[in-house]
Amino acid sequence: MHTPTEAGTDSPAHDLRHHGDAEVREGGLTDLAVNVRAGTPPAWLKARIAASLDTLAAYPDGRAARAAVAERHGLPVERVLLTAGAAEAFVLLARALAVRRPVVVHPQFTEPEAALRDAGHDVGRVLLREEDGFRLGRGDVPEDADLVVIGNPTNPTSVLHPADVVAALARPGRTLVVDEAFMDAVPGEPQALAGRTDVPGLVVLRSLTKTWGLAGLRVGYVLADPQIIGALERAQPLWPVSSPALTAAEACVGPAALAEATRAAQRVAADRAHLLAGLAEFEEVRVVAGAEGPFVLVRMERADEVRIRLRGLGFAVRRGDTFPGLDSRWLRLAVRDRVTTGRFLQALDQALTLVGR
Amino acid sequence: MHTPTEAGTDSPAHDLRHHGDAEVREGGLTDLAVNVRAGTPPAWLKARIAASLDTLAAYPDGRAARAAVAERHGLPVERVLLTAGAAEAFVLLARALAVRRPVVVHPQFTEPEAALRDAGHDVGRVLLREEDGFRLGRGDVPEDADLVVIGNPTNPTSVLHPADVVAALARPGRTLVVDEAFMDAVPGEPQALAGRTDVPGLVVLRSLTKTWGLAGLRVGYVLADPQIIGALERAQPLWPVSSPALTAAEACVGPAALAEATRAAQRVAADRAHLLAGLAEFEEVRVVAGAEGPFVLVRMERADEVRIRLRGLGFAVRRGDTFPGLDSRWLRLAVRDRVTTGRFLQALDQALTLVGR
Repeated sequence: MHTPTEAGTDSPAHDLRHHGDAEVREGGLTDLAVNVRAGTPPAWLKARIAASLDTLAAYPDGRAARAAVAERHGLPVERVLLTAGAAEAFVLLARALAVRRPVVVHPQFTEPEAALRDAGHDVGRVLLREEDGFRLGRGDVPEDADLVVIGNPTNPTSVLHPADVVAALARPGRTLVVDEAFMDAVPGEPQALAGRTDVPGLVVLRSLTKTWGLAGLRVGYVLADPQIIGALERAQPLWPVSSPALTAAEACVGPAALAEATRAAQRVAADRAHLLAGLAEFEEVRVVAGAEGPFVLVRMERADEVRIRLRGLGFAVRRGDTFPGLDSRWLRLAVRDRVTTGRFLQALDQALTLVGR
Repeated sequence: MHTPTEAGTDSPAHDLRHHGDAEVREGGLTDLAVNVRAGTPPAWLKARIAASLDTLAAYPDGRAARAAVAERHGLPVERVLLTAGAAEAFVLLARALAVRRPVVVHPQFTEPEAALRDAGHDVGRVLLREEDGFRLGRGDVPEDADLVVIGNPTNPTSVLHPADVVAALARPGRTLVVDEAFMDAVPGEPQALAGRTDVPGLVVLRSLTKTWGLAGLRVGYVLADPQIIGALERAQPLWPVSSPALTAAEACVGPAALAEATRAAQRVAADRAHLLAGLAEFEEVRVVAGAEGPFVLVRMERADEVRIRLRGLGFAVRRGDTFPGLDSRWLRLAVRDRVTTGRFLQALDQALTLVGR
C-alpha cells in the first residue's frame, strides 16, 4: 500500500515559503543549505552577461534565447517559454490554467503548492513515504487530479523517478508538471522528459539557476504544447525576462555549455559518493537511498538541534521540517567539493557529540 | 463639457500590445520611438551593475533596495514594493485587488488596460480630448469607478496634470493608480504624488527605465499603503526582481543619482524646447501644448504615410493610432539632443514634401 492523499487545507502546517537562502544570509557560514553549485557562475558566463549590459537601454527581446532553448531540446519555438525563474512559471501555471483538482507529490519543493494556494486553489497532497524510499507507486495520484506536480530528481529527497513512471501519470484532461530544475545535474539526463512531445499535457520546467549559479538573475524555461505555452505567455507581464537573463539562457544551452554541464554533473556524482561514504560512517544518520541530485536527504534524531550546533560550528544545512511529509528529524545537505565535505563531516561528528549522541 | 466614458469591449480597436520597441528593432534607424534617454545607462551605473554579477549565485535579497527607495521618498518600507518593471506592477494590480469597475484615463500607456483585460476585467475608458488639451476635467471619471489609472506626465500626450487635480480623483473605496514613470524627467517633480500618504487609496508607480536606460533590466517600484503593498506582494512570484536590477534600483535613488537625474531632466526640458521651436516652423504640424515629458505628441494629416517616409529617411517615430483616443493622424516623438533633433526636423521636412504636403 502506498500513501493516502491529504486534503488541501487553508493553513498548512509547513512553512511553504521557507527557503534555504534564508538559512545562509547571516554570518559567513559554509553553505550546505542552498542547492546552487559552488564557484558559479563561471568566468566566461559572467563575461557574457557583463557584455550584455551595453544593451540595457533597449527593452528585452527574447527571440534569440527562445530559439536557442528550442534547439537545445529539439523542439519548435512554440513549445518554449522563457520565464523569470521557475518561481514565475509556478505562478503562471497556477493562474493561467483552468484547474479544479491540483495535486502536488511531496516531499517536494514547496513553491508550486504555495503558488497554487495563492491563486485560490485547494491543493491535494500525495505524500510519498520513507518506507517506500520516497518513490512513486501505482495509484498514488488520484485519478481525478487534473494538475499533477512532481519534481524529478526530487528536491529534497534526491530521488530520480524513472521517466516512464512519471510519463505514466499523464491522462486525457490532465496537466502533468514535471519540475526538472535539477535534471541537468544528472549525467546524461537518462530520465528527462524535456524534449518529449508524446506525453499529453506534459509541462516540463527547467532552471539554469543551480548548475550555472544564476539564482540572482531569475531565468528558467517551460516546455509544453503550444496551447499551454500560449496560455502561460498571455499571463506573463510584458518583457518578463531581463536582457542579461536572456543572454545567460542563450549562453547556457549552447554545445560548449552543455558539455561543461555534463562534466559538472559527473563531478557532482563523484562528490556525492564521497559525502555518502562519509555519512555511512555515522550510525545515527539514515540517508535516503538512490540520491541522484546535487543534495542528499538525511534523517537523525534531534536533527533540529544538530542543525543549530552545526551553525555554531560554521555550517548551514537545510532544515527538513518545512517540507510536507517530513518533520524535524530531517536535514537536506548540498553536495560540495571533497575538502568542504570533509570539514563538514568532522563538524557533524562534533555536533552529534554535542547533542549527546 | 468633457468626455464620455467608453464601455469596455472584448475586442478593442486599438492594438494595446503595440510598443515603441517594435518600431526600432530592425534597420539601424535613429530612434525617436522609444522613450528611453539616449546614452544610458551611464558608465558608473553600468559598473555598479557589472560588480553585482559576482553575487549572481545567491538568490536575490531585495531588502537594501527597498529601504533605499523608501528613504528616497521619505516613506516606511511597508509602503514600497520593488517590481520587475512597471509592467509587472500593472499585472499585480489587475490580479491582486478586488475590483469591479476599473477605468483608465486615455490616451495613455496601454499596458494597464491590457493587463486589466487579461485578468478578466471589463475596462471603462475616459477619453480626454484634443480640444481640452488632453487635460482632465471635473466629472470626467465616473463616480462609481473603484480603480482609476492615470499617467502623470501622461504618455503619449506629455501632459502634466496638477497634483491636486489628480489627488482629487481619490474616493473612499477607490484605488487611484498614478503612473509616474516619466515624473523624474520633470525638473523638481512639482506635481508628483510619490511620497504622499494623505491621499486614500493612492498607488504610485515609478520606473527607473527611462531616465537611467534600464529597460532591459526590468525594475520599477510601487508606493502605496501597506495593505495594498501586502496584497501586491502576495501576488508576486518568489524572488521577483533580479539581483542586478535590485543593485540598479538602490544605485538610482541615492543623492548623487538624484542630482544627476535632475540635471538630465533640465537638459530634456531644453532639448524639448528646441524640438518644439523646430516643429512650430511646420504649418502642417500641430503639437499638443504644455509638453512636460521627454516626448511630444503631434498631429498632422497622413501621419501614417509621413511615418513610413521617415523610416525611409532613417528615423523611427512612434505611431499614435494604437493609443485609445488617437488615430492615424498622430505621432509621438522622443526628445533627443539638438543635433539629432536638427537632423530629424530636416527629415520631417523631406517626408512632408514626399507625401505631397
